[in-house]
This record gives sequence, C-alpha cells and structure tokens, in this order.
Amino acid sequence: MTLKKEIQKMARRARQASHLLSNLSTSVKNSALQEMAEELIRSAPQLKKANARDLSSARKAGLSSALIDRLILTDGVIQGMADSLHEVALLPDPVGQVSKMWKRPNGLWVGKMRIPLGVIGIIYESRPNVTSDAAGLCLKAGNAVILRGGSEAIHSNLAIAAILQAVGKQHGIPAAAIQVIPTVARQAVEEMLRLENYIDLIIPRGGEELIRFVVSRSKIPVIKHYKGVCHVFVDASADLAMAESICFNAKVQRPGVCNAMETLLVHRNIARQFLPRMAEKFKTAGVELRGCPEAKRLLPSIKAARKNDWGQEFLDLILAVRVVGGLDEAIGHIIQYGSSHTDSIVTQDYSNSQRFIQEVPSSTVLVNASTRFSDGYQLGLGAEIGISTTKLHAFGPMGVEDLTTSKFIVYGSGQIRQ
Amino acid sequence: MTLKKEIQKMARRARQASHLLSNLSTSVKNSALQEMAEELIRSAPQLKKANARDLSSARKAGLSSALIDRLILTDGVIQGMADSLHEVALLPDPVGQVSKMWKRPNGLWVGKMRIPLGVIGIIYESRPNVTSDAAGLCLKAGNAVILRGGSEAIHSNLAIAAILQAVGKQHGIPAAAIQVIPTVARQAVEEMLRLENYIDLIIPRGGEELIRFVVSRSKIPVIKHYKGVCHVFVDASADLAMAESICFNAKVQRPGVCNAMETLLVHRNIARQFLPRMAEKFKTAGVELRGCPEAKRLLPSIKAARKNDWGQEFLDLILAVRVVGGLDEAIGHIIQYGSSHTDSIVTQDYSNSQRFIQEVPSSTVLVNASTRFSDGYQLGLGAEIGISTTKLHAFGPMGVEDLTTSKFIVYGSGQIRQ
Repeated sequence: MTLKKEIQKMARRARQASHLLSNLSTSVKNSALQEMAEELIRSAPQLKKANARDLSSARKAGLSSALIDRLILTDGVIQGMADSLHEVALLPDPVGQVSKMWKRPNGLWVGKMRIPLGVIGIIYESRPNVTSDAAGLCLKAGNAVILRGGSEAIHSNLAIAAILQAVGKQHGIPAAAIQVIPTVARQAVEEMLRLENYIDLIIPRGGEELIRFVVSRSKIPVIKHYKGVCHVFVDASADLAMAESICFNAKVQRPGVCNAMETLLVHRNIARQFLPRMAEKFKTAGVELRGCPEAKRLLPSIKAARKNDWGQEFLDLILAVRVVGGLDEAIGHIIQYGSSHTDSIVTQDYSNSQRFIQEVPSSTVLVNASTRFSDGYQLGLGAEIGISTTKLHAFGPMGVEDLTTSKFIVYGSGQIRQ
Repeated sequence: MTLKKEIQKMARRARQASHLLSNLSTSVKNSALQEMAEELIRSAPQLKKANARDLSSARKAGLSSALIDRLILTDGVIQGMADSLHEVALLPDPVGQVSKMWKRPNGLWVGKMRIPLGVIGIIYESRPNVTSDAAGLCLKAGNAVILRGGSEAIHSNLAIAAILQAVGKQHGIPAAAIQVIPTVARQAVEEMLRLENYIDLIIPRGGEELIRFVVSRSKIPVIKHYKGVCHVFVDASADLAMAESICFNAKVQRPGVCNAMETLLVHRNIARQFLPRMAEKFKTAGVELRGCPEAKRLLPSIKAARKNDWGQEFLDLILAVRVVGGLDEAIGHIIQYGSSHTDSIVTQDYSNSQRFIQEVPSSTVLVNASTRFSDGYQLGLGAEIGISTTKLHAFGPMGVEDLTTSKFIVYGSGQIRQ
C-alpha cells in the first residue's frame, strides 16, 4: 500500500470510530482513562525499552542534550503521563451538555448541545508524553485522534499508543480511536493535511517553523499559536511590592515558556521609584535588561533596547523594559508589539483595571496577577491541549470543552415554515 | 500602487480600525445602523443609477436572466436592506458579555468575555444586498469588514459601501470599518487570502466551486458550508398527518435552498400506509420522486434512484426516497450520505426522538419540525451571516454572537505562580 493510501485508510477508520466515540458513555470513557493510566505504569519496562531505541538513534544522529532530555521516558515522566490521564478522567464530560434552550414564538424549543469535533490531528515535536496527554483529552471529549509526533520519538510514541489501544479495546473502544502515524516520512504529514473530509481539526504543537509549515499546507482548519510575547504594565497606582513580586515571577519562574513576560512597561510617574529596586531583584536572578532611553537613564548599567527587542519572544532571562506615559501608551504598545497571548496590568486604579481588561485584545488579560497563570490547568480547565491565538473557536488555553463544538437541537410539535 | 500593495493597505487599515471598533459603545453602533438604514432609502436613486451600470454590463456579457434577477436593486430590495440593518440594531450586543466567572483556589477570579473577532473578509457572489447585510452584522459585533462581491455587482457594491461609510463617519466610525475591494481582478482575492496577520476570518458565500477555491488558497481560517443534503426520517410511530405536512414543507416551500429536504427516509412498518398518500401530495407540486427498490414496489410509477441520488443536493423539485428498517439504518444513512447540515425525525416515540437528537452529528437536528427552520432568523439568532458546516467555532446558522470570540479575563490580588 502506498503511503498516501495508508494515511487515507487511517483517517477513514478514525472517522468511522468517531461516530462510536461520540456516543460513548462518560463512565466507559472514565474507566478506560483510569485503566490506561495504570497500564502505563505497569508497562514502564516496555516503554523504556522502546524509548531506548529512540535515544540510541538520537545520540547517533548527534541531537543536542536538550532535545535528548525532552525525549527521555523516565519513571517520573511515565508517572506524570499516568497522573494526567487520571486528572482527565476526573474532569466533567462536556459531550451532551445543553448550554441553553429557548422557546420560539411558534412553540419550537431550540437549544445548543455540545458534541465532539470528530477527528483531530495533532502534529508535535519530541516529547512522547504529548502522545498520552493528547489521546486522553481527545478520548474524554469523544474524538478520534491521529497523532504525528517527531521522527526521533517514533518508537516511544508507537509503544505508548499500543498500550492505550489495548486498554481501549477492553472497553469497546476501537483501535482507530487512537492512532499514531507509523512512519517518519514528511510526506505523511502533507497527506494528512489534505484529508479535510475525514479530519476536522489540526493542532500543531512545536516551533514556529513547524506551525507555519502546517498552516501553509493544510486544507483542514488549524488551531495554533506562533508565540507568546507577554507584557506586564506597572501602572502609577500599583502596589509596588506586589508589582515586584508579579514581575519577578512572570519573568523568572520559567523563562523558556510562552506565558513568561518578555516586555515590562512601567508608568513614568513611578519609574524612578520602581525600576531601580526591580532591576536589583532581577540582577539576583541573572536577568539581562534592555531598556528604552528613559529606562536607561534610570538604570545606566543596562543595555539599550534595539528596535527588534520590542515584540521579541526571548524565551530566556532577557527582558525589554519601556517607560510609558500612561495606560493609553501601554495598551498601544501591547496592540502594536503583542502576540494576542497574555498581558497583565498591576494597578490599584479601578478605571484603569477595567479599561485594561476590556481593551487589551489578548487571549488572556489579567489584573494584579502573574502572566504565568495563562495555562489551562491554572485557569481551572483541568488540562490543556494547547493554547490558541487564532481568534476562532478557542482563544487562549484550550481544555476538554474546546475539543467539542455545539449543534442546534430543536424540539417541535409539527411546525412547518410559513 | 500595485494591486498587492493596495490590498495590503486596505487590510492594514481594517486592522487599525478594528481596535477602535472593538471599543465602540452599543448605542453608537445602533444609532449608526439605524441611520445607515435610513440613508440607504434616501439614496435609492443613486443606488439604482450605480446598479444600472452593472445591469448594462451584465446584459452585454450575456448573463442569464436568473443572475440578472439576483443583481437588480429595486425599491423593494433596498427596503429589505434597510429593514435588515434596523433588525441588526435591535439585536443584543454580544461584545463585553461575560458568560461565566469562577474562583480558583488561590483567589483568582477567572471569566470569559466576548470580544470581536477583529477583521472579517467576506467573499460572495452576485446579490448586492449581502454588502449591507454583512457590513451591518460585522459592525454590530465590533469587527472591521473587507467585502469582495462578484465582479458583475462592483458598482452597486461600491455605491452601497460609500453610503454606509459616510454615515459611519458621522458617528466616528472610520471608513476602514467597511471596505469594498474596488477591483474585479481575481488576484485581489488571492492576495487577501494571504494576509493572515491582518484578517482573522474568511467567510465565502456562493457556489461550491468558489468555496473550494477559497479553502485551497487561504492561510486564514475559513468558515464555510459546501452543501445542504437534508434528510427527514419518518419513524414508525409518526403522526402521519404531521409527517405529511412537514415533508411537504421541507421539500416544496423553497426547494432551491440549502435547508430543503433532499432525501426522505421512511420506516418500513408505515411505508405502505404513508408513501402513497405522500407521493400523491408531492405530485400536486410536481415533485419528481426517485425511490429505492422497496419504495418503487410501493410506488410503481416513480423513477428508480441511482447510486448518486443518495447524498445529492438537488436544489430542485426532486426527492430521493428510501425505505429503512428502523432508526439505526436511518441514522447510518444520514451519517454516510448527509452533509452535517440539517436533519429531522418525525416520531411519537420518546426514545427514538432522544437518540436521533443525540446521535445525528449534523449542525441542526430537529424533532417533529421542518428542516426549513435551520436558519438564523428562524432559530432566534436575529440575523444570519451564513451557515457553517465546519465543526469549529460555529456549527450551523451563525448570528452576531458567532462574529465574536471570548478571551479569558482574570482579576487577581497579587497572585504569583508557585
């Protein structure tokens, strides 16, 4: 069978499975998820054996130690995968929820009922734990999933999927509910992106290059985010101790992730008071500051920011700092340089907090809290399949509910249209 | 300026305008909409003059009378455009609605607030009234819109947009809020579909060919529906008088539209009783029936259905008829041949009504009502920008709310992430 035919066959099977999955009871899905978690733990030796093959190829191919680090399946990583499946089992089942119902003048009752999206394609890099996380979330939301991980993790991903499929089978879940594309050929991805009749949604997870490739080739809707350029604006009325703690956390707690702060905006009226002590604190953590001319006057030892430092996703202990004249300038800067991801204001001013919340067009907008909370788990969604800065369907952290859509349901008593 | 640069400039201006539009007060938007409606009526002579240019070119080009009919701006059509803008003004404003809010263990208050999508591109054919309908809906939802109508309607569309822009200006709404692409070159559409940084959503409205072209070229998310293959299943327990009235309405009231019935499924146990009288009634309206072998045995004078009659969108007084053994076979047929659009069951059986509502994966599923109700206005959405069978963001008839998305809003009191 050609690769093209093979991918088509997988997708067709996934579509068939999706009809069954959409009607699976919550208790069947939850028992399957719980048992998948237990089976992953029990199968740790097999998983590590498959993983060892990937690791050995990766070392031969000279992959960086950071990449190898992300690839490795330790007992801790396997435990984390199991924990995540247990958590997903505990989440409420969105499928079948009727969010509202209303009565039309002619007596029709019209409502919106949540249903699974159908078949989801996930294209991701390195980390094999994404395989079980994504499979668990898709199963909970009643979707079939086709997984395409990085070529360097192929044996690990296939081993994980085999375990999930075997447990699924015992619960009447067809193997086509969770499929890993069993080849590393890039052509498989291109073929997958053409199958709009079988696949409802593509979620790429990885670097900007991967995501741009997927968007440019896909005939299927893609939910994506390219980057996270998060801002914190410290307003004139801010509680400065709070501002210091939030800014430090937003920058330093985990600088390599998309919800870390990349640019600090400070109101002119408190810049002289705030910036030197904030800079002192950042110094203890080794943060490199790059300031606008006004910030540099207050902090002579820091670097001058260059034009492309604004809107830059450093993913590192580097921070651009700008002094602004007020709220309008801060919002203007965020609109110009932000990435629709996450932005926060630190303020004690009621009007400014409200204006910031309403006017900043990012997927998560916070008052007096760290940008690091922009995360499905932290916001209370339970688990997260990804973050969307595509302003469609889902915007921001996406949980189980965002793996569903709604259909109209109508209860009539013989109505016809006049 | 090259065409490419010109389209980019329009899109960039639309993006700038969208920030202002997203913060426009409801009362400003509503007054503008009301006055746009009045100004269209007052400007009828100018509109008809511009329209006459389009009509004359259309006649010279030998367009069919059906196409010319759709192109013409009569006083009645202009009144309809004005009425539609008045109606949109009366709809609730979705922008700023907070649908829910919850408290996290750490005291963060997290909510979801509706915001505009941003910039919407609409690509449509012939009917110039779409220009004002779409502009009105987009304005109400706080979006900038870029309109690309059919080349045969270019003067009419530009004249309508000029009126809307002029009224908008008096209310502080920038002209870039409502723009019509001022050229008929197809390259303009291709250019538009590449501007993912400026345009958030593309809605193509027209024939399947146009939609497939847009989907294949667009780097921007597309909301679409290719066709409507709607089914009615008459169950064994149906009230047969009700079934007759619903089926007749679903097929005959307006056969050329996407929510008309294309296939009738009849339960074997009542087929002998129901089909002859239904066929008699369809005969009075000139409906051509194409039956499965079993239907043909009961109605010897009808044509035999060919394989491609199942799943066919006739858009005409033609109906495929199939006798099925029960609910499972009916749902199976709909899943195999349907188009995720609209399907209805006529039944008095409680369990079957519930199973049909839950298991049919179409965007609108009805019990005991005509498929013709699958329409934004009929379902109570006020007005409709289109119908989506893309299972993302919106599924089914789309109203003003579906021209918005939600962002997360978070009220904190100094929380940082542990």
